[in-house]
Amino acid sequence: MSLIVPAKTKRVYLSKRPIEGIEKDTFVSETTYVKQPGPDEVVVRVDIVSLDPAMRGWIRDVRSYTPPVKIGETMRAGALGTVLTNGKTLKKGDIVQGYLGWTEYSTIKEKFLEKVVAPPGANPVDFLGPLGMIGMTAYFGILYVGKIKPGQTVVVSGAAGATGSLVCQIAKIKGAKVIGIAGAEDKCRWLVEDLGIDKAYNYNEQGWHSRFKREVGYLDVFFDNVGGSILDFMLTRLNLNARIVLCGTISEYNSSKPRGLQNYQTLTAMRASIQGFIVFDFTNDYPKAVADMAQWIQEGKLKRKYHIESGLENCPRYLQMLFRGENRGKL
Amino acid sequence: MSLIVPAKTKRVYLSKRPIEGIEKDTFVSETTYVKQPGPDEVVVRVDIVSLDPAMRGWIRDVRSYTPPVKIGETMRAGALGTVLTNGKTLKKGDIVQGYLGWTEYSTIKEKFLEKVVAPPGANPVDFLGPLGMIGMTAYFGILYVGKIKPGQTVVVSGAAGATGSLVCQIAKIKGAKVIGIAGAEDKCRWLVEDLGIDKAYNYNEQGWHSRFKREVGYLDVFFDNVGGSILDFMLTRLNLNARIVLCGTISEYNSSKPRGLQNYQTLTAMRASIQGFIVFDFTNDYPKAVADMAQWIQEGKLKRKYHIESGLENCPRYLQMLFRGENRGKL
Repeated sequence: MSLIVPAKTKRVYLSKRPIEGIEKDTFVSETTYVKQPGPDEVVVRVDIVSLDPAMRGWIRDVRSYTPPVKIGETMRAGALGTVLTNGKTLKKGDIVQGYLGWTEYSTIKEKFLEKVVAPPGANPVDFLGPLGMIGMTAYFGILYVGKIKPGQTVVVSGAAGATGSLVCQIAKIKGAKVIGIAGAEDKCRWLVEDLGIDKAYNYNEQGWHSRFKREVGYLDVFFDNVGGSILDFMLTRLNLNARIVLCGTISEYNSSKPRGLQNYQTLTAMRASIQGFIVFDFTNDYPKAVADMAQWIQEGKLKRKYHIESGLENCPRYLQMLFRGENRGKL
Repeated sequence: MSLIVPAKTKRVYLSKRPIEGIEKDTFVSETTYVKQPGPDEVVVRVDIVSLDPAMRGWIRDVRSYTPPVKIGETMRAGALGTVLTNGKTLKKGDIVQGYLGWTEYSTIKEKFLEKVVAPPGANPVDFLGPLGMIGMTAYFGILYVGKIKPGQTVVVSGAAGATGSLVCQIAKIKGAKVIGIAGAEDKCRWLVEDLGIDKAYNYNEQGWHSRFKREVGYLDVFFDNVGGSILDFMLTRLNLNARIVLCGTISEYNSSKPRGLQNYQTLTAMRASIQGFIVFDFTNDYPKAVADMAQWIQEGKLKRKYHIESGLENCPRYLQMLFRGENRGKL
């Protein structure tokens, strides 16, 4: 592809906040002029955008760790891109990551970008996976918040998802017994056969609760990407001092009236905790985490699976796919 | 009162596990013979029994930190008593505390008893309050689990209760801004006027949510004795890194179908946590806690209020009173 700055770019902006699921009129796509870069800016061609569960939170108008996307604003998204203009530190042709958003071309301050150089065995796209926010979330969530120890039983929901599949593998590397929960038979097979976790349950299958009770019993750490009824069930499965790492509650993101947790009383009985966290709390330790992840990639211990679709204007549809669990691998 | 061992004693035992609230046939009272003490036992006259929310859990047949009371077993209860026989370490006339249960006289192993000597300014009954389990729960809950810092906003539910009122006062001593939640106007007045906390809300009053939002806004630590809808509301009031200390969920104890928590998603957004705990996790630090509490009592900084009723056979009725919030002070 050429490294020429075009006159125009397509972008997809937030047009209306959804009440429940994402609707036809939530996002609108338009063609607009590419803004000339200021003295501390560069123009970047967006090559791959990452679609993540957190995006549902960004378009909700509530207090959170990050301000909501405004109406009319280009939809925020982590992305990989190629620099098209020379800046002060970046130069034409550099591959960068940052919140480039749902746009073909972005004019953005250099300080919001990070130049990426794939370590041995890795690919630039891994910076949207194990070497990026997803990977940091998995790493700090299971190791720093979950504090897993060898031999402990770890349960991961959304186990076949981008974060979950990394959590499963990190927990295995650290010697835990790993149980995955996913929403389809082929996802469960992938977890056990390809990723080598100990057991996987399909939550869409009748009777999985009783099989889980019989076969697994109780857990020490629950890494939850899903929330809702799976979290409520796991609250009945806590060992003493169990820790629930609340990473996401994707099952509730599209709901205006979330299902309540009934079984939280066990937290007192078992001296257990639910801990919400976000990866930005651990920025000081990113270099160590990236080094560990890069090493595991090089050693072939971290498998990744990407699900790549094309067409910027289709991003809203792909995002819906994510919430329906239709993707296979990091989207 | 004489220190003679009588032939018979009244006792109240668990006859049937309740489904929801305590029923007429949950407990039965009977007269039985006082058991002769073995070589490592003493006979104790039970002077005051403590009625606590945790008792509802003890008669439920579920996994918990302590085994459930069996059908036919004398109801478990913390109590103060007077030793009537000479043992190896205890002697006739000693005042002791322990789980003596709902009985007039108890024949019990010496090792399950602790001799109490009230420090200056205190009364033996304080060993059922600030110097006993209740006090330890308040102390470790707010200081070790809640980790309050001066100037932080602390909200306490069940604030006029035995534990809650101590939590409020410890938090004030430590320089926090303290907001109490209670279920009656006179309780709220007592909290503000007598205990000197900053503000109190009556959750039975219309519109307290919106007044709380306007006047308090957000909180750093929520010490929860109640659970249910108050906990669910406070989940919407979390500052960044807020901590919820889940001490009890009295609002749900008598319910077979607890009301669910809807707003737990904020735990992720605000990197907050809910931590269940029990006081037995901190036994190593009991001496320090008792010394602090005794000093605060002596300095007049810890006010206590006891609600004392009489008649062992009426204990079940008094326990119901506790769950309806009809007591005024530690029951």
